[in-house]
Amino acid sequence: MPRLVKQRSKKSGLPPGSLVHIGEVRAGEPRLSVISYDETGIKELHPKDAGECLVFKDGPAVTWIDIEGIHDIEMVRKLGECYGFHPLVLEDILNTDQRPKMEDYGEYLYIVLRMLHKAGDTRVVTEQISILLGRNFVISFQEGIEGDAFNSVRERLRSGKGRIRGLGADYLAYSMTDAIVDNYFLALEQIGEKVETLEDELVANPSSKTLHKIHELKRETLFLRKAVWPLREVISNLERGESPLIHDATRIYLRDVYDHTIQVIDTIETSRDMLSGMLDIYLSSISNRMNEIMKFLTVIGTIFIPLTFVVGVYGMNFRYMPELQWRWGYFAVLGITAVIGVVMILYFRKKKWL
Amino acid sequence: MPRLVKQRSKKSGLPPGSLVHIGEVRAGEPRLSVISYDETGIKELHPKDAGECLVFKDGPAVTWIDIEGIHDIEMVRKLGECYGFHPLVLEDILNTDQRPKMEDYGEYLYIVLRMLHKAGDTRVVTEQISILLGRNFVISFQEGIEGDAFNSVRERLRSGKGRIRGLGADYLAYSMTDAIVDNYFLALEQIGEKVETLEDELVANPSSKTLHKIHELKRETLFLRKAVWPLREVISNLERGESPLIHDATRIYLRDVYDHTIQVIDTIETSRDMLSGMLDIYLSSISNRMNEIMKFLTVIGTIFIPLTFVVGVYGMNFRYMPELQWRWGYFAVLGITAVIGVVMILYFRKKKWL
Amino acid sequence: MPRLVKQRSKKSGLPPGSLVHIGEVRAGEPRLSVISYDETGIKELHPKDAGECLVFKDGPAVTWIDIEGIHDIEMVRKLGECYGFHPLVLEDILNTDQRPKMEDYGEYLYIVLRMLHKAGDTRVVTEQISILLGRNFVISFQEGIEGDAFNSVRERLRSGKGRIRGLGADYLAYSMTDAIVDNYFLALEQIGEKVETLEDELVANPSSKTLHKIHELKRETLFLRKAVWPLREVISNLERGESPLIHDATRIYLRDVYDHTIQVIDTIETSRDMLSGMLDIYLSSISNRMNEIMKFLTVIGTIFIPLTFVVGVYGMNFRYMPELQWRWGYFAVLGITAVIGVVMILYFRKKKWL
Amino acid sequence: MPRLVKQRSKKSGLPPGSLVHIGEVRAGEPRLSVISYDETGIKELHPKDAGECLVFKDGPAVTWIDIEGIHDIEMVRKLGECYGFHPLVLEDILNTDQRPKMEDYGEYLYIVLRMLHKAGDTRVVTEQISILLGRNFVISFQEGIEGDAFNSVRERLRSGKGRIRGLGADYLAYSMTDAIVDNYFLALEQIGEKVETLEDELVANPSSKTLHKIHELKRETLFLRKAVWPLREVISNLERGESPLIHDATRIYLRDVYDHTIQVIDTIETSRDMLSGMLDIYLSSISNRMNEIMKFLTVIGTIFIPLTFVVGVYGMNFRYMPELQWRWGYFAVLGITAVIGVVMILYFRKKKWL
Amino acid sequence: MPRLVKQRSKKSGLPPGSLVHIGEVRAGEPRLSVISYDETGIKELHPKDAGECLVFKDGPAVTWIDIEGIHDIEMVRKLGECYGFHPLVLEDILNTDQRPKMEDYGEYLYIVLRMLHKAGDTRVVTEQISILLGRNFVISFQEGIEGDAFNSVRERLRSGKGRIRGLGADYLAYSMTDAIVDNYFLALEQIGEKVETLEDELVANPSSKTLHKIHELKRETLFLRKAVWPLREVISNLERGESPLIHDATRIYLRDVYDHTIQVIDTIETSRDMLSGMLDIYLSSISNRMNEIMKFLTVIGTIFIPLTFVVGVYGMNFRYMPELQWRWGYFAVLGITAVIGVVMILYFRKKKWL
Repeated sequence: MPRLVKQRSKKSGLPPGSLVHIGEVRAGEPRLSVISYDETGIKELHPKDAGECLVFKDGPAVTWIDIEGIHDIEMVRKLGECYGFHPLVLEDILNTDQRPKMEDYGEYLYIVLRMLHKAGDTRVVTEQISILLGRNFVISFQEGIEGDAFNSVRERLRSGKGRIRGLGADYLAYSMTDAIVDNYFLALEQIGEKVETLEDELVANPSSKTLHKIHELKRETLFLRKAVWPLREVISNLERGESPLIHDATRIYLRDVYDHTIQVIDTIETSRDMLSGMLDIYLSSISNRMNEIMKFLTVIGTIFIPLTFVVGVYGMNFRYMPELQWRWGYFAVLGITAVIGVVMILYFRKKKWL
Repeated sequence: MPRLVKQRSKKSGLPPGSLVHIGEVRAGEPRLSVISYDETGIKELHPKDAGECLVFKDGPAVTWIDIEGIHDIEMVRKLGECYGFHPLVLEDILNTDQRPKMEDYGEYLYIVLRMLHKAGDTRVVTEQISILLGRNFVISFQEGIEGDAFNSVRERLRSGKGRIRGLGADYLAYSMTDAIVDNYFLALEQIGEKVETLEDELVANPSSKTLHKIHELKRETLFLRKAVWPLREVISNLERGESPLIHDATRIYLRDVYDHTIQVIDTIETSRDMLSGMLDIYLSSISNRMNEIMKFLTVIGTIFIPLTFVVGVYGMNFRYMPELQWRWGYFAVLGITAVIGVVMILYFRKKKWL
Repeated sequence: MPRLVKQRSKKSGLPPGSLVHIGEVRAGEPRLSVISYDETGIKELHPKDAGECLVFKDGPAVTWIDIEGIHDIEMVRKLGECYGFHPLVLEDILNTDQRPKMEDYGEYLYIVLRMLHKAGDTRVVTEQISILLGRNFVISFQEGIEGDAFNSVRERLRSGKGRIRGLGADYLAYSMTDAIVDNYFLALEQIGEKVETLEDELVANPSSKTLHKIHELKRETLFLRKAVWPLREVISNLERGESPLIHDATRIYLRDVYDHTIQVIDTIETSRDMLSGMLDIYLSSISNRMNEIMKFLTVIGTIFIPLTFVVGVYGMNFRYMPELQWRWGYFAVLGITAVIGVVMILYFRKKKWL
Repeated sequence: MPRLVKQRSKKSGLPPGSLVHIGEVRAGEPRLSVISYDETGIKELHPKDAGECLVFKDGPAVTWIDIEGIHDIEMVRKLGECYGFHPLVLEDILNTDQRPKMEDYGEYLYIVLRMLHKAGDTRVVTEQISILLGRNFVISFQEGIEGDAFNSVRERLRSGKGRIRGLGADYLAYSMTDAIVDNYFLALEQIGEKVETLEDELVANPSSKTLHKIHELKRETLFLRKAVWPLREVISNLERGESPLIHDATRIYLRDVYDHTIQVIDTIETSRDMLSGMLDIYLSSISNRMNEIMKFLTVIGTIFIPLTFVVGVYGMNFRYMPELQWRWGYFAVLGITAVIGVVMILYFRKKKWL
Repeated sequence: MPRLVKQRSKKSGLPPGSLVHIGEVRAGEPRLSVISYDETGIKELHPKDAGECLVFKDGPAVTWIDIEGIHDIEMVRKLGECYGFHPLVLEDILNTDQRPKMEDYGEYLYIVLRMLHKAGDTRVVTEQISILLGRNFVISFQEGIEGDAFNSVRERLRSGKGRIRGLGADYLAYSMTDAIVDNYFLALEQIGEKVETLEDELVANPSSKTLHKIHELKRETLFLRKAVWPLREVISNLERGESPLIHDATRIYLRDVYDHTIQVIDTIETSRDMLSGMLDIYLSSISNRMNEIMKFLTVIGTIFIPLTFVVGVYGMNFRYMPELQWRWGYFAVLGITAVIGVVMILYFRKKKWL
């Protein structure tokens, strides 16, 4: 279950720009990988130390430094210093409960995104991705160390397919954003399947488990929505912004990601509407079934109560009860109770109560 | 049932502009038809190959290339290349879960619309229509191959009635949009009729089927709404946009379609409000009826329970029970029970419980 | 009951500007009346043919042509042609399910309004009013032929009271709009009275009829709202628009109508809020009453069930039941049941269950 | 109870600017009071006739004419004419169901506000206050004649405390607005107290009276809200408007009233949220209590029904029933029923049903 | 419990700018502390009298005067006069129910914030903090005297860590705002923990206490939200405003606080959504459980009622009842009742009613 609030209290009282890691501490060492490419070629490095990243800093080629795992504060600080990032940026990279946002620091753009991951069997958790986009570099910080969000981008860079190598750092940043939004569609497909399974279950055999599943899905879409809504503005700002770091050729691609984001939001909203409708159906079908049961049982009871009265009458011990002496009295009473019973059943049937 | 999410995962990780068909694959071969017209005349072609389309490319006449069925990716690519469309446009044509949108690529406008079709008996499904509007051409891609959305437009072109031949490609694109919006009114009429039938059913004989029908209609309007809402902005952008491809004479017609779109949205919203109201009525009338039944049955039971107690008293076997020896004791008890029963019935009547 | 959707399908596939009458066809012949006035005098005509209207076309006086009943398409076409109206305007005049709107065609303004009429006893239906405002003319098309919406305006023109004759065609158009908005207040008064009657009914004697009345009122306000909301924008556009056809002196009056419209909308929203509140009260008071009944009945039953058990005990036929032989056994049992009964009643009273 | 709609129908069909009094006609004669002041001194008059007001019209001092009771149409007309007010302004002064608004007529501003009054014991009704602000005059029309809304302002003028005499007519108008908004806080305090009383009642002893009180409070806040919401815009327009009648020194005070208005709106919205929450608590606590009762009663019944069956068995008159002859049969049955009863009670206890 | 409305009536009728303390009067004397610092050093004073504050007024160093406890009106007035604050500012400082706001008085900015405090065990109350920011001074008024909101800021000033001493008064005001927003995260963490505890309770053992806890949390978030929502605008105005009192270097930090505020709002909204969902689950699980109980009990009753009828039949005293004479009649009846009982139990089991 995604936690509602992360432990920010750690940082309370510290001056702004203090580097404190907020979020789950992951096991394992952070991984650093550097790719430097231009139209003609590509070089890959896996340095142990952040200092080695500097070799490409001033070259004409595009450099992409990717850090998986941000709990090594020292590494983040060193990298930040040598690229001259604002302390607040470094602070935000380490605080893993940021909303998606985009900030223009002139020399570079700071973009925060949230990647979705499957945790365990069904749960979806989000991971913070920070992207710093400069004139000739992209630096990305991934919160977690399991699973690389940017594998497909890396592959495309290596193979040199598409136009990715020929276009600049902004196109690389776009490709990374695109990879993340594509990921959302996978999550939506899963949710969509669950919704459809639930709909069948709702018609066939609604139980209190169905209710819990509906609420869980509602909650999941709530968290998904929280991650995706701000993205809309982020990408819109990137596309329409005035930063010279984004070339016009890239803007057309950003518009495409923007469309995808809108589509994701749209689908989330539709899911929510459908889940609300399903909740209504569930509640009314449960109460319907319960009422049917109660009605049936009450009808049964109601038929026998008057009959019990009738036989009670002839259980009385009065000395003078003429019927008791009649030859066919007993059978008459049996007949009468049968008639009353049948008439009541017919009446209830006619009234559609049975 | 329209699926919530289409299988976008196929495309995950591919570079932007990759041509992958997303959506239901339809049987049958795509159809290609070309119409070239100006005020003086009209020519029609049914080429087998996309390459043949080029003959009209640079002529002064308006050319309309209509493709029904987009699952032949090769054809889409070839056409796209010879008209020089952006790869993202071709990608979007093939991804059939686009929201309605309009994109201005300078040389041409790319418009995505959604056509409604009846599937089976009652269901309404949507089909993606992509329209590319250039200076002297309109290229339209219809997702499905059953039913031609633009029959009426074609007929008007052939007959030369109205002003359609005299005005340019933008008027043709308008006519196509108009045909699609007109189509929405048909869907609304159907929904309107269903709503009215349901209202009668609700008064006469509400059952749990009524509930399911209400929810189905709600869901249908939900999907309809999803298709129509963005259209509003699309047409507004066409009308108020600055593209020189849209002439002023056409803008006045676009305003007309815009009005129709607003009217469609308005009616959808009203339907939704009415369906919500009907849901409330259904729920309260069902629970009302159930309560009436329970009340009736409980009253019956309640009348007989005290009576059963009375006759139980005289079923006791005590040696000294003076009443048992009375000559008229039995009849007195019968009388008393009758009186108690009648008094209770009257009391319940007076209290309006019966 | 106002229909949700009118039969627009008739027009499907026709080119824009096709003149097809959409809406209920009314019996009776359309009426044509022409008034031409200036500060010095007034002339009235009742021509049989639209052609006669032309006599006043180019004079300096203000001409008001009023058509009641628009099902004579030929007449509408002829009038439209001689004044040179755009085909889309004529089309819209005939399609009687337009939302209120204002369109500026330069030479003239096209205004669509909706008039309220009482149909039968309680229902309110709306009628489309189209107003065309030119430099020196106003042409109004009323959908229905029963009841003249503009009687009061006509009277004021004839009597020459107020400033109506001295001001131009725009003031006449304003007066007509004002007459329609004034009409809304009548409808609101009726609704207000019904709401107050319902509130009393709700306190005194809520029944399932109350529920239906609440829902009917809700629905009526829904349709009223649909007619009035767009009006707000229409009048605001007239007031703040840049059309030279509206003089500054008239704008101050338009602001007044605008205020009235806001007031109407405000009152509709308040009614809706009140009706929602009443629905809540109704539902909870009904369920309250039902629960009270059930509780009472169950209590009665619950008191007698243990008593019936007690007398059942002494109805057993065991050979050795010492109490049966006791002299006062019978009376002791009667006494015990009475005591049990009274104690239970007191207990239930104390617990406020009875 | 504030009426939803006032009888506007009286005015239907009259030309704009017709002076008709709409609203409750109050007994008693309207009161006229005139105060003329500048920094050096203050003069007070209580003229019988509106004509006397003119003496101060062109002086340099600020004149405040206050009319309590507007049902003397003649007086309003005379005053309006001698100050040259627009007929629509006079019409609006007499129509006492205006929403708060501000209109700039160049020479003067017309401000409509609504004063709250306690009517009877608990109800709050609103009274229309019209303020006309000119260069050197303020004319105020109070709808009612009971209670003077502006007593405190008058006192401050008389005593000469504060800066009120030194600043112009706009500061006087501000002071009057401020007095009205201060009044809202009193109403809010009352509502706040009622809300808190209700909350206690809800915990201690919820009854159907509680429900009605909640609904009444909801309704009261609904009407209060209707009076206050538009005020926000009115004051904002006064503050940010460009009228030279408002001096910069006054604008800072208007910002202060604006803050107060926001605070009032905020508190109203919070009250509404709290009342909605209370309604939910009420409904669920009532249904909880009812369910508890029903459960208890049903349990009692359920325990005795099987016991009654057992004793019924031994009430049968079969010739061969061995148990009946047993010496201790009777006591065995008594023991068995006791055991069954106790076991059932224990079972229900364990299940927490009792 | 935070009160809905504070006693503003005290001030009703007083001229604007009257200094009246509105809010809870706290025991104890107000504390005054003065810190004057520049990059080179820091001086601290604890004067008894507001007059002493003046010594630093015109120096180049930044002066921070912090007042804890504002119920000494005289002190506030004196300070206000010597710094030349507007009377409305002083009035607002004393009225402790202000919403967060920012007002630009040219020479200085007036900022109102609300600090959260834990009161007693679980409740959160808010305290008004007024900050006046000038060119070289910050004056802060804290409503309460328990707990210093700005301890961490003071510590940073004393230690000279970070950039706080080197930057101007605006950075100090930012630091104070930041401290307050950091505080909100602590409150959110608490709420988050309560929400999670409640979720577990809801699954394990929902009781009516759970309901009350949910409503209390809802209410708490309601008040928290009221305090935080306006903050968003306040900080946005500070950041984007044109006041020369805010330097560009500080704006970047304000953007950071702005992000935090958005995050707080976001989390509050999510909590509210989750609490609403929990309320739904609670209500349906309670009604589910109740229905289960009722169903079980009714089933038990329903099984025995027909059986009681059967044994009642053989309790009748008719002379001619052949079965009574049968040797195995009694055992037959016992068998029959057993069979009926078992069949009914099986039937109910099959229908899943038991």
